[in-house]
Order: sequence, then C-alpha cells, then structure tokens
Amino acid sequence: MALKVAALAGGVGGAKMLDGLAHVLPADHLTAIVNTGDDFDHLGLRVCPDLDTVVYTLSGVSNPDTGWGRQGETWQFMNTLKSLGGPGWFQLGDQDLAMHVLRTEALNGGASLSQVVRKFREMMGVAVEVLPMTDDRVPTIVETDEGDLDFQIYFVARRCEPKVTGFRFEGVEQSRPAPGVVEAIGQADVVIFCPSNPWVSLGPILAVPGIREAVAARPVVAVTPLVGGKAIKGPAAKMYIELGFNPEASTVAEHLGELLDMFVLDEVDREQASAIESRGVRVRVAQTVMQTPEDRVQLAEEVLEGASHLLSMEVKA
Amino acid sequence: MALKVAALAGGVGGAKMLDGLAHVLPADHLTAIVNTGDDFDHLGLRVCPDLDTVVYTLSGVSNPDTGWGRQGETWQFMNTLKSLGGPGWFQLGDQDLAMHVLRTEALNGGASLSQVVRKFREMMGVAVEVLPMTDDRVPTIVETDEGDLDFQIYFVARRCEPKVTGFRFEGVEQSRPAPGVVEAIGQADVVIFCPSNPWVSLGPILAVPGIREAVAARPVVAVTPLVGGKAIKGPAAKMYIELGFNPEASTVAEHLGELLDMFVLDEVDREQASAIESRGVRVRVAQTVMQTPEDRVQLAEEVLEGASHLLSMEVKA
Repeated sequence: MALKVAALAGGVGGAKMLDGLAHVLPADHLTAIVNTGDDFDHLGLRVCPDLDTVVYTLSGVSNPDTGWGRQGETWQFMNTLKSLGGPGWFQLGDQDLAMHVLRTEALNGGASLSQVVRKFREMMGVAVEVLPMTDDRVPTIVETDEGDLDFQIYFVARRCEPKVTGFRFEGVEQSRPAPGVVEAIGQADVVIFCPSNPWVSLGPILAVPGIREAVAARPVVAVTPLVGGKAIKGPAAKMYIELGFNPEASTVAEHLGELLDMFVLDEVDREQASAIESRGVRVRVAQTVMQTPEDRVQLAEEVLEGASHLLSMEVKA
Repeated sequence: MALKVAALAGGVGGAKMLDGLAHVLPADHLTAIVNTGDDFDHLGLRVCPDLDTVVYTLSGVSNPDTGWGRQGETWQFMNTLKSLGGPGWFQLGDQDLAMHVLRTEALNGGASLSQVVRKFREMMGVAVEVLPMTDDRVPTIVETDEGDLDFQIYFVARRCEPKVTGFRFEGVEQSRPAPGVVEAIGQADVVIFCPSNPWVSLGPILAVPGIREAVAARPVVAVTPLVGGKAIKGPAAKMYIELGFNPEASTVAEHLGELLDMFVLDEVDREQASAIESRGVRVRVAQTVMQTPEDRVQLAEEVLEGASHLLSMEVKA
C-alpha cells in the first residue's frame, strides 16, 4: 500500500524531489505544498518562481541545465525589452511569459492563485496536486547588512551577495493556508520536507498560521538541503554561515527541530548521523544529490522506504 | 525649403506613407498623428496596433510581408499561451510583447500614452515625432448587423465579416487631443491624410474635439485609400458598400468633404478626376500603391510636390 504524502517544497531541489515522488507514488497519494514567498510583481506581471519550477518539472518541460524555466526557451521578449530600455535583471523567457501573463490576468479578474495553479497544471498534464502554501501575498524580505531587500532583488539582482541578518515574511500572520493544504497534511501518512532552503523555502511555508501545527501532528521526514557543508543550489549554506551557524546537515536537522521524526542525510555526511540521532531524530543515509531523473526516483524510493520504516516503528511503539 | 507636414495615419498604409515622408522631409518637419481607436486591452495588456505599426515601420523593423508586427518575429509565447488554454485569436509576437508589457506597466504607473510612445520611438531611433491622436481612451465600436463589436473583435476575431451599419468612438466627446497635436497641425504648411481607412482610421482622429477644426484651418492633401474600387488592405471598400456607397476614390473624396484641398488619385482611377474637381477639390494623379520602399518615397515626393503646387496657387489666389 503506497503511503499518502504531503511534501513541502521550494524551487529547483524541491521540484526534483517532487518529480521523483511523482514517479513512485500514485498521483492521488502526493500533494505538493509550494513556497510562494519568492513571488513578486515584475513589469506588472505576477511571477511565481517556485510554483512554476514545480509545475514545469512535474510536466517534464523544465530546462535540465538550469533547473528553472523551460527547455528550448527563447529570449526574444527579453532582448526587445532591453532594447527599449526595460529592466534586464530578471529573465522572462518567451514561453515562460505565457504563464505570467495568463496568471496576472486571472488574478486581476478575481481568481485565486490556487485556481490558477490548478488550471495550469491540468493544462500541462500534471496529475499530482500542487498547492501554493497560501493564496495571500506573503513576500519574503531578506534583512541584510545593506538593509531590507525584496527576495528577488536579493536573490537575482544582487546574486545573494549582501550579508543576511534575518528574514521576514510580510503579512504572514494574517495569511491563511490555501484551500486543501491543511487537509492534505492531515490526511498524509508522512510529511516530506524536500531538500529546499530551510530559511526561505520551508520557512515561509511553515510560517503560514496553521501549517506548522498540522505538520507537527504528522510524522515528518526531511531530506537534507546541505551536502558536504554546501547547498546543491542557492544560498542556504551562505545564510547559515552569515547567521552564525555551521553550515552542516546536522545544523539543518537542529534548525527544523522538533518537527522532525527522520532526517535523510547524504552519504558524504554519514558521520553526522549520531549527532542528529542524539537529539531523538532518526537518520537515514542516502545518495541525496539528484543529477539525473533516475537519481530523483531512487531518492524518492529511499525516502519513502525510510518513512515506511519510521511508521512501522511508530506502530510498534 | 521643405514643407512642414502634419500627417494623419492609421496602420499599415498610413505607416508606409509616413515612412516615405520621413525619407524625404527633415525629421523636424514631419509630425505623425496616429489613430488610437483600435487600441484595446488584451490579456491585461494595452495593445496599440496603429501606433506600433507606425513606430515599427519608421524604425525599419516592421515585417515586410504583413505590414504589421516585426520582422523575424517568433511565436513561442502564443504557442505556449494556447497550450495553456489562453486565447489565440489575437497574435502577440515574442518581440512585440515587449512593447505591450512595457507600455501597460508605464500607463498603470501613471504615464500618458504620449510619453510612452515618445520613449519607444526614441529608443528605436525614430526621429520623427509620432503622436497618438489622444491620450484618452476612445475605443472604436463597429455597429453591425450582429450588434456592436469592439474593433479588434470585428477586425481580427471576426475578420470583418459582420455587415457594418455604423461606427462609434466611445468617449470621444470628452477626449482631448494629445499634447502637441493641435500645435503640429497649426504649424504645418500642409496636413496630409495618409491612405488610411476614412471610417476607422481617419474618422476617429478627426472626431477628437479640436482636431477637425485645426485641420480645417490648414491646406489638406488626402491620398486615396481606394484603388480601382478596392482597399489595398483592410475593409474600407467593404464598409463603403455596406453603408450604401460606391467604393470608389471619388466617394472617399466626397466623404472627406470640405476638409480637402487636394486629392491624390491613383493612376487607375484617373477618369474620376473630373468628378472630384467638380466639387472644388484639386486632383493629382500618382502611382499610390506602395509595394517597395522606393514606392513609398516616390509617392511621398509626388504628394509633397502636389502640396507645394497647391500652396503656390493659394499664394497667387
């Protein structure tokens, strides 16, 4: 019997993990709950980087080289935009633009982000449920030594260079989980934290009132986003360092704290297992770096096997 | 001494005439005043077909096959849009989109259409002044036997098939000429009506309060939009027929009426000269069909020569 899974995810790493899970689980056994803290308005268009990366990846059209955007993307719009004096710092591909334009029109017409994502994933043949963490706006602000920066300014325009001092998810106290999010977590046999940035991908999701509580009531397996002290992609390790932490998998396990029941550690960090286990979190060691589609499936199988093991032990306990 | 010209224009035919004039006149001697009745909001974007056709044509990037849009245009956005269930009836090229997105953002930010057009034409190296007829919204409604249709619905979605019974330019009574329009007309030695549709290109421009009066005070030379009873492009002839008129150049001359001082007739319609002259309008016969860039320049030279002749006669009179 396949487990029912609710998986929390950010962008590229999270999307790969979701893709692996989607290949292993029946479609109605997996719900992706995706960070929207990165969402922003650019050129009047609502851009949702993590949601789009997840939907593109699950539908098989993502760019295998970058992890974000679409394969075979072209840049005629961007080139013309720049020739007209428009901003070139955020790349909007010609195909990608269709999502942003349609989404913006739908949202301005009163549709919810959930409704828009459902339409897109259905049109793109994605059978797995993909939910935004919330339909409300909860923009991530990166607090840095250069002041507060909107997430995409920090991440793209400034290439994560400013030194991080903290994070804010604006308006998160008033936000509500998107329809189905709390239900999916409540009905899940296990909640999986994909290998996404704990600060700016998992963090915003867990900050939406109601989500952390729902997650805490279920068994949780987290897949490490740090391998050998480094993030596969993105600024997670840099953020840990700047905030005064050792950028190690064991730090992530401690950071995610009491929510965790099991932590999936990369083989190269095998020696950190005992430190994590000493805090009452079970550890499973796996090859967590997903370079090929097969890696995604193999990691998904490992994680689900770990989860089954965890659940069987809970039954015994 | 080159004449100072204010030229009223719609889309493709008007743009070609303007391009010819721009090649012959010093840049500061030509002001284009362009129809905005065709403008509409599509997918949340403000689309200004005639203005864009004029700017593309004057900057040398227009598609020589269609007359509208850009050369080397690609359709990745449209293909993706359609795959997501978006509307496919109005073509938005990948390059073209940059104009619509930037314009919409600027307008939503409080800029006027005039300011947007100025920015675009300067970025695209167009030295000639291009003015929208108005900065206000004056959408053309085509009254048909199937009811009122927004212009682009009639023109693109319905391919001009419904039978026309009349036209409305919504809100035109409250509209004001864009800054510089009345001044450019007042300072012009001659006003040229480009070979544009009298009903839905010249008509809206002349309906903006103040423009017709300014034009009436200046010598006017109109270039026929009908040749051999047909429009080179667009539904002008069909409209004349459906409204009960003979679709001939002489009908256009009568339609434009007392504004006209000179009418430029195509060689093939030479025999209509006397009918037009009998109503007190001077006639010049020329090759008015612009198939090549050289045709545009030649026609511009003919028109300007006609205007000079007209002016010299007025001085004598």
